[in-house]
Amino acid sequence: MDTKILRNMSYGVYLVTSVDGDRPVGCTANSAIQITSNPATVAVSINHDNYTNGCIKKSGKFAISIMEEHSDASLIGIFGFQSSKDVDKFNGVSYEMVEGVPVFPQTNGYAVFKVTGSMETSTHTIFVGEMLDGAVTGSGTPMTYAYYHNVLKGKTAKNAPTYVEEKEDLEKVTDTDGKTKWRCTICGYIYEGDELPADFVCPICHATADQFEKVVE
Amino acid sequence: MDTKILRNMSYGVYLVTSVDGDRPVGCTANSAIQITSNPATVAVSINHDNYTNGCIKKSGKFAISIMEEHSDASLIGIFGFQSSKDVDKFNGVSYEMVEGVPVFPQTNGYAVFKVTGSMETSTHTIFVGEMLDGAVTGSGTPMTYAYYHNVLKGKTAKNAPTYVEEKEDLEKVTDTDGKTKWRCTICGYIYEGDELPADFVCPICHATADQFEKVVE
Repeated sequence: MDTKILRNMSYGVYLVTSVDGDRPVGCTANSAIQITSNPATVAVSINHDNYTNGCIKKSGKFAISIMEEHSDASLIGIFGFQSSKDVDKFNGVSYEMVEGVPVFPQTNGYAVFKVTGSMETSTHTIFVGEMLDGAVTGSGTPMTYAYYHNVLKGKTAKNAPTYVEEKEDLEKVTDTDGKTKWRCTICGYIYEGDELPADFVCPICHATADQFEKVVE
Repeated sequence: MDTKILRNMSYGVYLVTSVDGDRPVGCTANSAIQITSNPATVAVSINHDNYTNGCIKKSGKFAISIMEEHSDASLIGIFGFQSSKDVDKFNGVSYEMVEGVPVFPQTNGYAVFKVTGSMETSTHTIFVGEMLDGAVTGSGTPMTYAYYHNVLKGKTAKNAPTYVEEKEDLEKVTDTDGKTKWRCTICGYIYEGDELPADFVCPICHATADQFEKVVE
């Protein structure tokens, strides 16, 4: 059985948000689908270990904002590679509150949902929600997960439904064109170049140069 | 509230199959996501009106095959714009039986699942399944729904979770570049040209020339 076939399913890249009392929380997600258009309903899969999971359960609400190819990629790193338990991911990030949930109009747009059902698996909760409000706020091309992976060279967060240990990807990095490469130890972003500039900041997760390691020389 | 934002979510294009007793059945779907990688689990949303829905409930099994950009697009039309109630969709189509479910190795690959959970909405059932078997059988680029819509000019089947009446698309067709256009009355495919050849066959659904209507002159 080759589970790698599941890596060839197609996804978008989303910021999934909710609230912890009054405090905005959120994470990145790719596993989101529309379930029906009447009433407008989606499902999204969120890891039990994501702080956002418990906040959706308590508040009964969540929102998705849809990343565009040219949206600020650091949103993915900020929301995808650290926990709302430890940091205020919204510090310095522009957002609006709609129906009591934070959303990002600087993306392609957003939709806010009330939870109408959920189902548990061993690692993830599938939340089903009916749309309360939403808007198209951008006009660019929605980012696909393939674009994130292949063009932005982004990695899969450990809590993602589609995460598998990326040993093969590691081999791909160390086994190729002889160029010197540096990898972000936070999000996996690869920088190509003989020297990593001392003031370099990871475009995905805002990690600084000292958080990069040389992976090919 | 602008539900159009949900049209900007990203999907693949899948053939979802099952069995009616011994008889293979299937339909197209775009709303499918991985839920967790351990054990490999997906969710797929299937309309109550799809014959395949009841067959998945009875058999407890389904498979997805992943369309590539260069897969034979007629598979989408054959499986997406008619019902297994009325026709044998598998007549003339190459398939294999894996774990008792038909799959299509001529696509990017397939995965077979046993149903481990389901949830009902007003129009669709969300089936959750654990992977039993699967294989990568192609090496092309998986087809995204955006590719199907924008490049192949395919339409959304009425039973899809993402279906909305495409009045706007109709306006887009009739309100543009002055070229003569013909629309397939079965699947909505648009042919551009002054004359539709008498032996023309729709590349999406295999409809014949007499099933096309002139929409712009």
